Amino acid sequence: MTDISNQGGLSPQASTLPSGTHRIVVIGAGFGGFSAARALKAAKIHITVIDRTNHNLFQPLLYQVATAALSSNDIALPIRSVFRSRPEIMVLMAEVTGIDRAGKRVEIDGATAVPYDTLILATGSVYSWFGHDRWAVRAPALKTVADALSLRNRLLDVFERAELSEDPVETTRLMTFVVVGAGPTGVEMAGAIAELSHNTLDRDFRRIHPSRVRIVLCDAGDRVLASFPKRLSDYAARRLETLGIELRLNAGVEDIDARGVVAGGQRIDAECVFWAAGTKATPVASWLGVQPERNGLVRVEPDCSLPGHPDIFIIGDAASLAGADGKPLPGLGSVAKQQGKYVGKLVAARLGGGHRVAPFRYRNWGELAMIGGSSAVGKFGRFHLTGFPAWVVWSIIHLLLLVSARNRTVVYVNWIWAWLTYGRGARVITRTPSHMPDDQR
Amino acid sequence: MTDISNQGGLSPQASTLPSGTHRIVVIGAGFGGFSAARALKAAKIHITVIDRTNHNLFQPLLYQVATAALSSNDIALPIRSVFRSRPEIMVLMAEVTGIDRAGKRVEIDGATAVPYDTLILATGSVYSWFGHDRWAVRAPALKTVADALSLRNRLLDVFERAELSEDPVETTRLMTFVVVGAGPTGVEMAGAIAELSHNTLDRDFRRIHPSRVRIVLCDAGDRVLASFPKRLSDYAARRLETLGIELRLNAGVEDIDARGVVAGGQRIDAECVFWAAGTKATPVASWLGVQPERNGLVRVEPDCSLPGHPDIFIIGDAASLAGADGKPLPGLGSVAKQQGKYVGKLVAARLGGGHRVAPFRYRNWGELAMIGGSSAVGKFGRFHLTGFPAWVVWSIIHLLLLVSARNRTVVYVNWIWAWLTYGRGARVITRTPSHMPDDQR
Repeated sequence: MTDISNQGGLSPQASTLPSGTHRIVVIGAGFGGFSAARALKAAKIHITVIDRTNHNLFQPLLYQVATAALSSNDIALPIRSVFRSRPEIMVLMAEVTGIDRAGKRVEIDGATAVPYDTLILATGSVYSWFGHDRWAVRAPALKTVADALSLRNRLLDVFERAELSEDPVETTRLMTFVVVGAGPTGVEMAGAIAELSHNTLDRDFRRIHPSRVRIVLCDAGDRVLASFPKRLSDYAARRLETLGIELRLNAGVEDIDARGVVAGGQRIDAECVFWAAGTKATPVASWLGVQPERNGLVRVEPDCSLPGHPDIFIIGDAASLAGADGKPLPGLGSVAKQQGKYVGKLVAARLGGGHRVAPFRYRNWGELAMIGGSSAVGKFGRFHLTGFPAWVVWSIIHLLLLVSARNRTVVYVNWIWAWLTYGRGARVITRTPSHMPDDQR
Repeated sequence: MTDISNQGGLSPQASTLPSGTHRIVVIGAGFGGFSAARALKAAKIHITVIDRTNHNLFQPLLYQVATAALSSNDIALPIRSVFRSRPEIMVLMAEVTGIDRAGKRVEIDGATAVPYDTLILATGSVYSWFGHDRWAVRAPALKTVADALSLRNRLLDVFERAELSEDPVETTRLMTFVVVGAGPTGVEMAGAIAELSHNTLDRDFRRIHPSRVRIVLCDAGDRVLASFPKRLSDYAARRLETLGIELRLNAGVEDIDARGVVAGGQRIDAECVFWAAGTKATPVASWLGVQPERNGLVRVEPDCSLPGHPDIFIIGDAASLAGADGKPLPGLGSVAKQQGKYVGKLVAARLGGGHRVAPFRYRNWGELAMIGGSSAVGKFGRFHLTGFPAWVVWSIIHLLLLVSARNRTVVYVNWIWAWLTYGRGARVITRTPSHMPDDQR
């Protein structure tokens, strides 16, 4: 029998780690936590990265997994393989269940404790259904790989069911898609569903015409992409209408049930409803025992530390911090990434001799939003970009941002292929495993 | 509101189809049904292809999906996209629930009827746990995409749990893998688990050593790869031992429970048990109301038709037919593929004027089995191939057999990448979607 010796312990105390080792715990391996751990290089440190999944996910392309253009593996990297050559980093796939601030320990899986000297919280945000938890099952959102695969199964499945249906009313309901929330995620989802139906699926069916799907994009506000300048919102709205997408603005969702949605006083019968509306922070505030701001965010100091606790940092979507213009920084991957790098370097500098570091400053390189139909919008300071040029810039930037060269190559092959053929490479519907008893399928 | 008109009906009667149209129903779009529909080209026909999934799966590479080397989309093709340019072919994703032989109709989803003039049954085989249905949940098998993803999650998850474990006995149990059945599937699974643990994962963990996993391959028979000549079996056994795999021959499985396996009178504590032992035919015999042979197979005439029913054909794993040597044809993809092509051409010829067609004859081009560690075995008539040359032949043949050029390119990129780096591109663990209530996760 092979001997599997236990190497060290989950709680590396002074006795097992070389004396004077500074223990850092990073919770969350998204844009923020990932770049914090990458930037944090110093002598005599031990970093524990804790995430509930085993991968770092490139979320901006997740909608392409949900709409059958990419495989999940193309945009997800195993966290531990990235930190393979850094022996001082230990990766744990576990659920954080609490933080003992007095004892300076993180509790995982309700049982084990991981001690820290410095704690970096980068847990991001989750979707919020405005208190209507039963809507969550009817109108799923897109945050994790499992979400994307579940949305993809739903999306592809309705076309299959429509092809089989002998009831025209039910066929129409099956072929109606509602996207709730017209921010960047809602807009790209609606656009991608239009592309999938019009281009990829249309000639594949005999009894239905996927190009005749009805796609409704509704929002409580009065314009799409509200974080962009009005001119770009208007451009996006026109492009969405060209793609055959029905816009319902000033139409807040009032109810979601098994048959469809009620928005702006009107009922829309639909089988597939996707949620891209509100988000809130993960339970960081309750772990820390502090009073959260709106949406569960925790206010931090200009150096991203928790007020009164220079050993605890909160970065990314879970943190509330004002930018140079006095407005709160947006919940974007680029903010999280820059904060992660900033905090990683700050902690390293502190360990190296305690230099004072300038407060965090967000460098806004610009923002892009994909619409679909080879069109996007972008703002770079005062400079605006629309249509095909914006789409090209979007594609290049997203390809460059993908961390792994393998993923870059595979995504590139898939995109070129899709562009040449309108084909989509990831159209497999995954059912429950065949070894599951039928009643659990 | 878009008008989605109902095109034709699920039951194309003489009234909706041009008069004299011959209606063919193909059940199953695996190797057999797929090649039957491809080969069946004639005037005035209408073909309905029914499958419970939406894809044609290249099963020989499924173990690479289960062991994190490939994504499922790399080896699965949407059935309808393949038949896009053949308007006489309608594809339905549905479950066949019965066959009305007198009325010449196939019942799908317990409700709808699809009439046929000619019926081709290509439903393949399913795994059989020798009557121990409760073993199925503990020791899943590898037949569908969902199976592969479920196995992959299990496989990657145990390493994560072992890294967290503080109990050495539990760690050892988590890092023990048992594969039941030493045929080609069991051998390639055991070899791939060894490659994954030794090469890909080993440097990724801090507390466990994945290269010290214990992999046990057990079989009730007295040699591995029993369908191959003794010399090749012996070679494979030696190679498997070089890979660190424990062989347990003459060790039939007596019990499988939540803690492990009892085989050949000995208990092996293991979390992951994979089943690669027996298969049986799908319920074709009961649908047709005929007496099955061993393992549910239905005996067919030399032209693959059901005795006494020249309008019903059974091909592939579900059919029992003797080869030129008098021995039953094996349950291989190549047999199913050749039978499909044969029956497709036979039906087309019959519709074209009723020429007599020679009985089906299996052309045995040879057989290969992957071992792992850049090694395989192959027999081509009297010619045997072992080791690296067999591995090269295996790789080239499997790449060429992949139907789609896109899939071929992506698999090629993944393989080259893995060969250069020992990395595996498909290591994402998929959890339950985040919108599911916690108690359903």
